[in-house]
Parts: sequence; structure tokens; C-alpha cells
Amino acid sequence: MPNVNLYRERLTCLRQAMAQAGADACLILSADPHASEYLPEFWQNRAWLTGFTGSAGTAVVTEQEARLWVDSRYWIAAEKALSGSGFVMEKAQGNPQQAAIEWLTQSLGNQGVVAIDAQTLTLAQQIHLNDQLKPIEGQIKDVDLFADIWTDRPELPQQPIYALTPEVAARSRADKIALVRTKMQTKGATHHLISALDDIAWLMNLRGRDVPFNPVFLSHVLLDAQSATLFTQLSKLSPALIEQLAADGVQVQPYENIHSVLSQLLADDVLLVDPNKVVASLMNAVCAQTVHALNPTTTLKARKTTAEMTNWRRVMRHDGAALCEFFAWLEHAIAERSQQWLTEIMVDEVLTSCRASQPGFVSRSFATIAAFGANAAMPHYMATQKSNTRIHGHGLLLIDSGGQYEGGTTDITRMVPVGNLSRAQREDCTAVLQGMIALSRLRVPQGTPAGLIDAVARAPLWARLVDYGHGTGHGVGYFLNVHEGPQSISYRAPIVPEAGLQPGMVTSNEPGLYRVSHWGVRIENLLHCQAAGDSEFGSFVEFETLTLCPIDTRCLLPELMRPDEIEWLNAYHAEVRGQLESLVSDDALEWLLERTQPLSV
Amino acid sequence: MPNVNLYRERLTCLRQAMAQAGADACLILSADPHASEYLPEFWQNRAWLTGFTGSAGTAVVTEQEARLWVDSRYWIAAEKALSGSGFVMEKAQGNPQQAAIEWLTQSLGNQGVVAIDAQTLTLAQQIHLNDQLKPIEGQIKDVDLFADIWTDRPELPQQPIYALTPEVAARSRADKIALVRTKMQTKGATHHLISALDDIAWLMNLRGRDVPFNPVFLSHVLLDAQSATLFTQLSKLSPALIEQLAADGVQVQPYENIHSVLSQLLADDVLLVDPNKVVASLMNAVCAQTVHALNPTTTLKARKTTAEMTNWRRVMRHDGAALCEFFAWLEHAIAERSQQWLTEIMVDEVLTSCRASQPGFVSRSFATIAAFGANAAMPHYMATQKSNTRIHGHGLLLIDSGGQYEGGTTDITRMVPVGNLSRAQREDCTAVLQGMIALSRLRVPQGTPAGLIDAVARAPLWARLVDYGHGTGHGVGYFLNVHEGPQSISYRAPIVPEAGLQPGMVTSNEPGLYRVSHWGVRIENLLHCQAAGDSEFGSFVEFETLTLCPIDTRCLLPELMRPDEIEWLNAYHAEVRGQLESLVSDDALEWLLERTQPLSV
Repeated sequence: MPNVNLYRERLTCLRQAMAQAGADACLILSADPHASEYLPEFWQNRAWLTGFTGSAGTAVVTEQEARLWVDSRYWIAAEKALSGSGFVMEKAQGNPQQAAIEWLTQSLGNQGVVAIDAQTLTLAQQIHLNDQLKPIEGQIKDVDLFADIWTDRPELPQQPIYALTPEVAARSRADKIALVRTKMQTKGATHHLISALDDIAWLMNLRGRDVPFNPVFLSHVLLDAQSATLFTQLSKLSPALIEQLAADGVQVQPYENIHSVLSQLLADDVLLVDPNKVVASLMNAVCAQTVHALNPTTTLKARKTTAEMTNWRRVMRHDGAALCEFFAWLEHAIAERSQQWLTEIMVDEVLTSCRASQPGFVSRSFATIAAFGANAAMPHYMATQKSNTRIHGHGLLLIDSGGQYEGGTTDITRMVPVGNLSRAQREDCTAVLQGMIALSRLRVPQGTPAGLIDAVARAPLWARLVDYGHGTGHGVGYFLNVHEGPQSISYRAPIVPEAGLQPGMVTSNEPGLYRVSHWGVRIENLLHCQAAGDSEFGSFVEFETLTLCPIDTRCLLPELMRPDEIEWLNAYHAEVRGQLESLVSDDALEWLLERTQPLSV
Repeated sequence: MPNVNLYRERLTCLRQAMAQAGADACLILSADPHASEYLPEFWQNRAWLTGFTGSAGTAVVTEQEARLWVDSRYWIAAEKALSGSGFVMEKAQGNPQQAAIEWLTQSLGNQGVVAIDAQTLTLAQQIHLNDQLKPIEGQIKDVDLFADIWTDRPELPQQPIYALTPEVAARSRADKIALVRTKMQTKGATHHLISALDDIAWLMNLRGRDVPFNPVFLSHVLLDAQSATLFTQLSKLSPALIEQLAADGVQVQPYENIHSVLSQLLADDVLLVDPNKVVASLMNAVCAQTVHALNPTTTLKARKTTAEMTNWRRVMRHDGAALCEFFAWLEHAIAERSQQWLTEIMVDEVLTSCRASQPGFVSRSFATIAAFGANAAMPHYMATQKSNTRIHGHGLLLIDSGGQYEGGTTDITRMVPVGNLSRAQREDCTAVLQGMIALSRLRVPQGTPAGLIDAVARAPLWARLVDYGHGTGHGVGYFLNVHEGPQSISYRAPIVPEAGLQPGMVTSNEPGLYRVSHWGVRIENLLHCQAAGDSEFGSFVEFETLTLCPIDTRCLLPELMRPDEIEWLNAYHAEVRGQLESLVSDDALEWLLERTQPLSV
């Protein structure tokens, strides 16, 4: 049981702090000063307050009400986590923040005051919130109400920063900075502030360990035509690294100095910022003119270079070898009739240890989702000591996992049959695979906004009156964040040119199907977008499947598949076998050979 | 040759009028006070000025420049039409108006004055234009510069208005008005202005003949909770019709009275308007509060009733019978080796006469596109006496046509082989058909914005590195406009809930492929959106194909099609044969039986 009284007490403390600050409501975003997805513990106010630890969710507290909006991935998990906390879960159809802000503005009386920490509010969110509050004469009060009430709040992380080797970096720091300066010029900007941690890590060819899974470090960067300054805790940098940066024209300053340096910009300066990637607390002190646009780093880092892709394909072979070892072990464990000891957490542990023995492995790229039976119906389930389920009897085991390697990031989901599967379970797996295949084989005009192709993956599922509530694919970083923009293959993604599919982009392909309280299915490969050719109708792109791991055909009903779909699957399995067979041996090799047998067409 | 001097003279006159009005630029939209697609001649300023008669295009004239923006449908046709006119054609990638306004604001110096007739400017366009002009301190000057220079400007049309029979109307006028009043209430509106001619015709169960092809009449409607007023030229209404309207609580007033009645609304009144469907000249005099939303009539009329669909299916059988007669004649004409006399215009004439002999026929639903060879590469080609091409030798003939019937509107495109087709031509026809089939068979969650499924129809074309520059499908009215909102299956359509696919909607399905200077391909059926069933994932919709006419398999390369695609085509042909064989005889029957032979799978 959650410690109910704890969360109710924290809510009471927050309401007292609100009253002292003269606030009618408090908006609590899941955010840090870098618009990050994974937050340092210091910034996990929402989890501390509500007990819900999922990656996304927005809370609003008023004198009488306490609500938490979460998207469909978390509707089941959040309901459980909030039980007894004093918070009511609200189902957001789209963006939880937007839904929360809508409710907030509707429920506020005239002239309400909303407390919010502007260190967690992006510039775009501040603009939106002010627009919403204007008609009701509401006001934002910038205050961190948690500063006093969260007495044992953790420190900010202090992990060392390290440089990529030239081979892994694939392009020099100086070259990257020069590229960004060119883009600044075309936007008419004299200065450029970057707060997005993955953009900074990409630009500087540096990595860190400040948050789980994403190899980034807390920092900001300010560029102008001549100088480049990295703002980060100086103790994270070795003297040698500081020298290396200086040699590339990069100065370092303490993390907190960014505020004063920004406030010293002149009224004639033109500062380029991405309003979705800088926070209001930094920008509110700026008197320079601003240009709002996507960070040039975001577009540049999304288009992986040939050298990066060569490294990444090598990483994929190592990841595939690790998966063969793991699945060989798993199938033996499942086959043992006495496997009372096999649990979801154990799946994570063994899988991670298989990856850890591969060259270049750094860490998992996100918390492994090993979900058996009904647990898999929660798309973002994570086994805890409490939920940890024994894998035995009959059912589908969903394993969504990935690794960070020097040279690439992996993210793969596979389904494993345990005992006997029902016809309905195999139908569901087949429909999901058909969606994944349809997207894998798609060609599109270069620059097509990624959201417009989402329906192609869903069509085989829709044909059976089923669907899934999450996007079909997210961008993936190169030894960087497993979720990266600007492209998103999702019906919810804005249809804008910036989200256009371009050669070099790496995107996941992961349709799913979730039967609440019964089972869940997801199958996921990574796709590399590459040139498909030109015609009088322009340039086209297509997808190279990067992920190398068999898709268990025991989960399928081949008679529901078209001949061309079976041919795709057989060709994929032949490729996987060819790429991996020299890297594995013994049980792992046996498993690879068995699981890459072709289906008869 | 176009009469070059004529258009140059008109341009000179316009520039003189601009100078007198103190305008630096003049913006000429293709529009009337009803945001219509088909304009009464009185409102065809742009065609009169430039010589380009296509359905869409926006002109900007400054002291030095004269430019006309058109979308990709018209890039070839407009280039020809403007030759020597003094106007330069500009290729708009998306909306020509938006491109024109962008250029206008960029080219204007500070404090420029833009002359525009606010009778042709929607409220939304006025808001947009003001936003664009604000940074450069530009101003709109509301003036109709054509009033003086267009000396032989035609009168407004004066055609009679008639009432639908109860069987065709399918729902009573009083019921429809009551439905709209309910929607007004939910929006908090006391009044509602409707200027869209098809919305008015639908609401009032009336039809007219004021413009070609669309059976509508110039009018406005003002509703409040008790009264309903139709503003139209009173001479168009018979005394009996005026009585019939009065019995349903509808008063009539002269067309021009709408201005004074609107200006008499009180500051407490709340007027519901669709900013894209009312013009600024009407709204600028209103002191009531306004609520902006899609016209409730737009949403209501888009969802056809069961009774309407029963009528429409009957119309489709009659249209199909007419097409059998026509195609039987056409094939004989083509087969005659001496067919020097067969032209594109003749195709239109014979086809229209075949339709005219069917019960309930009223008119064509748009100008027939009969385009042979390279002419078909212009998606909106219309044969003129000048362009009219003889149909002989070898090539593809594209025929896109439709009829207005009491009980439904039709719109169909078919390809006809003339002589021998090349492999490339047959490949193109096959790819287009595959796109059309993919969309025909799609199921989607009810409410999916139509723009999100556009890629499904394009995927088979994209696979061959080809594409088309127009949308895949437009909504179609019930014995009303052949282009009707709110849904649009197009990558350019806004992804908004209002454009969601709902049961009862009728939409065209018309992928294409245009090889400039060589040939063009388009195949088009109408689809009726209907319930496909419910599941735990919500309600789903699917498409019933309404159009009944064989698709000529001699244009295809069946070996490029999947077995399931050939099965779809065979099933469609069996359905067409079953529906039509009792309605046709002799040559037409023979043709139907021949052209509905199944392909071997």
C-alpha cells in the first residue's frame, strides 16, 4: 500500500505554502530548467507530492481540489499510484499539461493567482498560460513552493562529464559549432542560448551521468559569432577537458552564472531561442531582442551522419548478440516446468547483464519494461518490488528494453510466448506486426511531416477494430536520449515542416495493442530514414531497419498475413541471421537459428 | 491567342483606380459575399482582370507588379492563360491566398495601403490580413475598385428558387431549424448568421440556379430563438413558396437588407458566425458580441441521413446506367478507325445527354474534364474551343464528370484506353487504382481527422516514387455542392476534430498521377462513411463505395497487384454488374458485361 498519510500531509503543507504566497492554485509540471524528459531527483516535485512516478503528468492543487492529468499510457498505473493520496487522476486525451491548464483556467475565479516555478516553465508554456489567464485576469506568481516544504530535497547531481572519442563523435566540436553559427546567421541572430541537455551534449561531443538513461549533464550554452560558453558545475570537468574545450574556443563558467550573463545582453543583441526548450525564469531577465525557432542543434543532430550510422550498425549487431544470449536463457528458464523463480525484475537483470558484456555498453537507455500477462496492458509498466510478477503458466511476455553504447542507442520490443497462447492473443500479435511491417516498407516524399504517416501503421489494426493510444514512433538519439525530436510518427504530432522526415533520422516503429486486465502487445524496431531515389515528383525516403533480433513467429497466426508480409518477415529473419550468426555461439546461436526459420508463404 | 491588349488595358485602368483611391496595392480574391467556390459572373473580377478562369487563384497588383498565385492544379493552365496579360504566375505550394498575402506584406513598404473589397474578404481572412499588415503598419482600405472600371459588369443572377419535395428533402425544414437552434444554445448564442449558400439551401430545403453546377441561390439567413429570416431577392420566390416558408416560421426580406438588420443587433446579443463563411463587410457593422465556430449547418448537412442515402444510392444506379450508355457509345466511337470527329468537347456533350435522360437529372455537378493525352496532365483541365483535342491514335483519356440529381450528387473519374497503351501508362493506372483501393478498404476510429488518412491512398504511389499535388478526397453534398466541408482527405487539411470522419459523410476518393506533357491518370469513386462496429477501443467507421461504374482493366497491369487487391476489384465489378444490369440494355448492357469480367487472381 502507498504510504497514504505521507502524501496527504505533503498536500496539506503545499496548501499552507500556497496560502502564505497568496496563491489560489499551484501548477506542478514534470519539468526541470532544461525541458528534460528524465529529471534529476531534485526536480521530481510532482512524484514527491503525488506518489505517481511515471515520466509525464501535470498536477494542479487549489484550496479544495488536487488533480493529476496523465496521458493514456498511465491511466492504469496512475490510478493505482494515487489511491489514497488525496489526488484525483484525470485522463488527458492529448497533452496532460494542456488539459490541466484548461481545467485550471476554468476553475479559477476572476483574478486568481497561480503559483508556478518559472524554472520549470518553458517560454512557450508561459506564453500559453498567460494567454489562457488573460481573459479571467489571472496572474502567474513565480515561486518555488517546494523550497521550504520539501525538507529533505536531494542535491543537484554532480557526476563527471567526459568527452567522446573522435571515432564515436564522428564530427568535430569545432565543425558542429561552426554549423550552428551559420544557422544563427540565417536567422539574423547574434546570440543563441541552448538549454536542452541533449542538444548541448551533441554540440560539445560531451556526455555525462546526471540523470538515469540519458547520458547528459546539467548545463546551458551561450553562443555568439566569436565565443562559446558552457555553463555547468565546474567540478564536473577535469582540467584536461577544460583545456580541450578551450582549444575549440569553448569557455566554461559556473552553471548558475547563465542568469547574470543573459541579463547583460544588450538591447541591440538578437538572441535565438527555442521557446519550447528554454525556461521562462532565464528569459524573463533578458532585454535583448529574441528570435524564436527550433534549436539548429535539434535539426542537425537528428540527421545522423554516415560515420555515425556505421557505428550505430555495429552497435546494433552487439545489441542483437546480447539479445540472442538473453532470449536463449529466457526460453530455457520458461521451459523449465518448475520456473517459480522467474520474475519480471529478473528479466531486466539478466538482459542488462547480457548487454553489459558487449563492447561500448554504457547503461540501459530507459527502464526495462518486462511485463507479463495483464501487466503488459499498461504500455509504460515498470516492474517494482511490489508489482513484480512471476512468469509462469500461460501468457504473453512483453519486453521493451534498450542500451546506451558508445556509438549508438538501442530500443527494441519483442513478445515472448509463455505456455500456450490463445487464438485472440496470436491475432493481436499478428495485427501489431502487420502494422510494424507496413511502416517498415513505406516510402514517402522527403520532408513529409512524420505525423502524416502514423495511419499507415495503424491501418492493419483498425481493420480489426483495435488501436493504441500512443504514437507509433519517436526519434532516437545517437548515444543520446532515446526520445529525441523533431520528428514524431504520431497522430498527435504537429503537422509542420520541421517534423519532416529527412535522410539520417532514426525513429522507432512500435505499434501496440493493449487489452486492459488481460494482455498487451508491442513490437518495435528502429528505422533509419535514407534516400530512396529522386523522380520528377521530388526526392523520396525509405526506411532501413536497424534492429537485429528475431520476431517470435510462435506468437503469430501466419494465415492472417498476406504473402508479401510473410516474405518481408522471412527476409528480415534472413538478414538478422546473417548479421548475427558469427557473433554468437552455443545456446545463443541455436536460439538464433531456430527463431529465424522462415515461415512458408 | 488571348486578347493581350485587353488585359493590359484593364490592368492599367485598375492601377489608375488604385492611385485615385490612394492604394499602394490591390488584393483580388476569387470570392463573393458567401465564400463560394463557384462565383456569379458579377464576382469574377479576377478572371475579368487576368484572363485566368480557373476556380482558384489570388492576384496582387502594385504600381510595378502584377502577380497571380495558383495552386499546383493550375500551374500549367494558368501559365498559358496569363501569357501576355501583364500578370506573372506564381506557384503556390499550399493556399494561393496565403502565399499572395505573404508576398504582399513583404513587398509593401511601411504604412502601405491595400485596397480590397471587404465583400469578398471573409472575417478570418480580414483577421489574418490585419495581423500580417500590423508589423509594417499597413492598412486595409475597403473599396470595390472594379465598380467603376468594369463598365459592362454583369448583373447579379435572378434565377427562381424552388423547394425540394418532402421525399428528396428527407427531413423537414422546421426540424432542421430546430436542430440548428439547439446547437446555437450550446454555444451560448442568441443569433446566428449564415452566409454559406449550401448551408442555407440545406437548412431551408430550397434550391436555386444562381451559379453553374451548384444548385444554390444568393442569400443570407439570420436565426434567433424565435424567428428565422431569409434574405434574398424577393422576385426569386413565388407567392406559394413565401407562404410555405412562413408556415415554417421563416420570414423573407430583400437580399441587401441583411446589412441594416445586422447593424441593429444589440450589444447584449451574441451572434454565432463561422469566420471562414461570413464576409468582413457584413461583420464590420455588427456591435453584438460574436462567437466564432463552424456553422452548425455544416456539420449537420455533412452527416447524411438514412433516407438521404437511400435516395443517393438510387441516383447512383441511374448515373451508372447513364455511364454504361455513354461508355458503350465512346468505345464504338474510338473503335471506328476513321474517328477523326471524336473530340473532348463531344465527350462532354454525349455524356451530359446520357445523364440528362435519367430521372431526376438537374445539371452537371461541375464542368466535365475530358482530357486526352497530355491534356490530362493538367488535373483541372477543361476543354475549350481552342484546346479541344481530337481523340485518336494512342493514349489515355481521362474523364472526370458528375451530375446533380434530385436525390444526390455524383462525381466520378475513369480512364479509357485509346489505341495501345505503354507499359508505363498501365503502371501508372495500376498504382493510382491501388491507392484508391487502399482507401476504399480502410477502417478508422470514428472522428479521425480526415487529413490523417491521406497517406494511406498515397502509399502505393510513393512506393514507385510518384505522387500527386492535390488532396485525395473532398466532401460531397446531397444534391448540393460537389465540394463540401468539413472533411477533406488531404495532407494540407487542418488536423482538427471538426474534420473528423463521421458516419453519413460522403467523400470522394480520387488519387491521381500527372506526367507533365505526357499523360495524366485519376480514378475516382464516392465513398459513404458508415459505422463499422464498436470495440473496447471505441467506434470505428468504414467506407461503402457508392459509385457504380466499371474500372477499365485494360489500363492495368494485374501482375503488379496483390491478390487481395484483385479480389477487391473483382468484387466491385460483381457489385456494379448486379446493380446495373437490369437498368441497361443492348450496347450498354453488352459493355457492362464485358467491362465487369473478373481478373484472374
